[in-house]
Amino acid sequence: MSFEEKIRVTFAGQRLLALMGAQLTRVAAGAVDIALPFREDLGQQSGSLHAGAIASIADTACGLAALTLMDAASDVVSVEFKVNFLAPPVDSRCLAHGPVLRAGRSITFCEGEVLADDENVVATITATMKQKRLRGTGHR
Amino acid sequence: MSFEEKIRVTFAGQRLLALMGAQLTRVAAGAVDIALPFREDLGQQSGSLHAGAIASIADTACGLAALTLMDAASDVVSVEFKVNFLAPPVDSRCLAHGPVLRAGRSITFCEGEVLADDENVVATITATMKQKRLRGTGHR
Amino acid sequence: MSFEEKIRVTFAGQRLLALMGAQLTRVAAGAVDIALPFREDLGQQSGSLHAGAIASIADTACGLAALTLMDAASDVVSVEFKVNFLAPPVDSRCLAHGPVLRAGRSITFCEGEVLADDENVVATITATMKQKRLRGTGHR
Amino acid sequence: MSFEEKIRVTFAGQRLLALMGAQLTRVAAGAVDIALPFREDLGQQSGSLHAGAIASIADTACGLAALTLMDAASDVVSVEFKVNFLAPPVDSRCLAHGPVLRAGRSITFCEGEVLADDENVVATITATMKQKRLRGTGHR
Repeated sequence: MSFEEKIRVTFAGQRLLALMGAQLTRVAAGAVDIALPFREDLGQQSGSLHAGAIASIADTACGLAALTLMDAASDVVSVEFKVNFLAPPVDSRCLAHGPVLRAGRSITFCEGEVLADDENVVATITATMKQKRLRGTGHR
Repeated sequence: MSFEEKIRVTFAGQRLLALMGAQLTRVAAGAVDIALPFREDLGQQSGSLHAGAIASIADTACGLAALTLMDAASDVVSVEFKVNFLAPPVDSRCLAHGPVLRAGRSITFCEGEVLADDENVVATITATMKQKRLRGTGHR
Repeated sequence: MSFEEKIRVTFAGQRLLALMGAQLTRVAAGAVDIALPFREDLGQQSGSLHAGAIASIADTACGLAALTLMDAASDVVSVEFKVNFLAPPVDSRCLAHGPVLRAGRSITFCEGEVLADDENVVATITATMKQKRLRGTGHR
Repeated sequence: MSFEEKIRVTFAGQRLLALMGAQLTRVAAGAVDIALPFREDLGQQSGSLHAGAIASIADTACGLAALTLMDAASDVVSVEFKVNFLAPPVDSRCLAHGPVLRAGRSITFCEGEVLADDENVVATITATMKQKRLRGTGHR
């Protein structure tokens, strides 16, 4: 399986993102983009996109970006991430990308951002991802 | 409106949390609990709860805990949060609480955690929340 | 006093940085650079630069960058920062820069990095800075 | 070498902390305390303790706490930490402690705080530490 296929299969397995209506829009070595069209049922009390939805796509973009650089028998888990919120997106399509800044043997560090309408930075993320060996005879 | 009522109204306005099936289980001055029963459609690729779902309830518990200590004409926005993931929860009911550690004039700092099945710490959060003045004639 | 002068005076008042031998090497609107030549007495147990020294110059570069955009009657305090360490610098001159990504009324968000020998990224920082009104008759 | 001795030797090798006048005041399995008496040359522009000095002792308390639980042939490095600053300490003796919240095979997570005069929380830290295998024939 190519890494592009592996990312698509992994993304398809992330059912929370399907629930939110998120879409995988780009897969490259060390960089993955995820889009989230605005929906009212993703909002917080004032109607703008909930911080948790922003964090969800940002974390996933980072995790999948890290996974593109790991060998085929690996999965990825989030060790930690921090999100800073610069402006609340209202009624915008958000795009998260989380390029890898440094890939180590077990730990990969990503630094990304979430844009609203391909323009304004609404949030930034820094994330530490860890390689997890898949068990069993085959690769996933 | 009492602060308890205000928190219930605010929580009810967070449509992302309704989408996830999260429940407000406790409201006290400076402390709010949010429960999230496990559902398969909140999972990530390996079937355990997605980091984004954990972050969503942890952020909300912190934000609402901060809001309990603000005056009636205030709303709350997330400035930033960081989540560390200690263990992936599978098939567990998660409970987030995010007590206020320090409430300043405009900035409130919360430090909380997410427990699985009322026992294991699966994640910790530190969050900075900001007071936002509500405009208009009435309080929300 | 121009903002450049204000930054130089403020930096000169940061005695910890003098103790470490740090130098202010660039001041521009929204961006400040601080250099730290390697010294053995700034090390940790393995001899490379202590994470605390890296954090000190990164935090200061962010704080002063934020201060360049505040009015003359302001000081700046760190609300929070997070540092990710990518590689331990040994025997290198480190350079921290922490450009402002978003300046709000009271809160400024910076995202910077620390380079070793003007080349390798050894650490990244994301920082939230807060404006503090100076009291008294004059500006500092 | 007992783990207590190992921590004392490691602390003694952290020359930055000697430069600041920090003291190792407690070593237990999974918990280390570091004290920092106030000195004017550790200050920032307003005279209170520099955020970098606070971060330095907090990071070290976490790193050494993690090291107490690692085997004898290990050293520890900081992967990342985040510090939130609650109140600026002026003219106080600060005490950092950073107990281990979860020790994994390679990654250890600590959550600690810095107290001023054994009373007020002036800062909190969450830190990810990584085990590093020592090379060579002997343990350090």
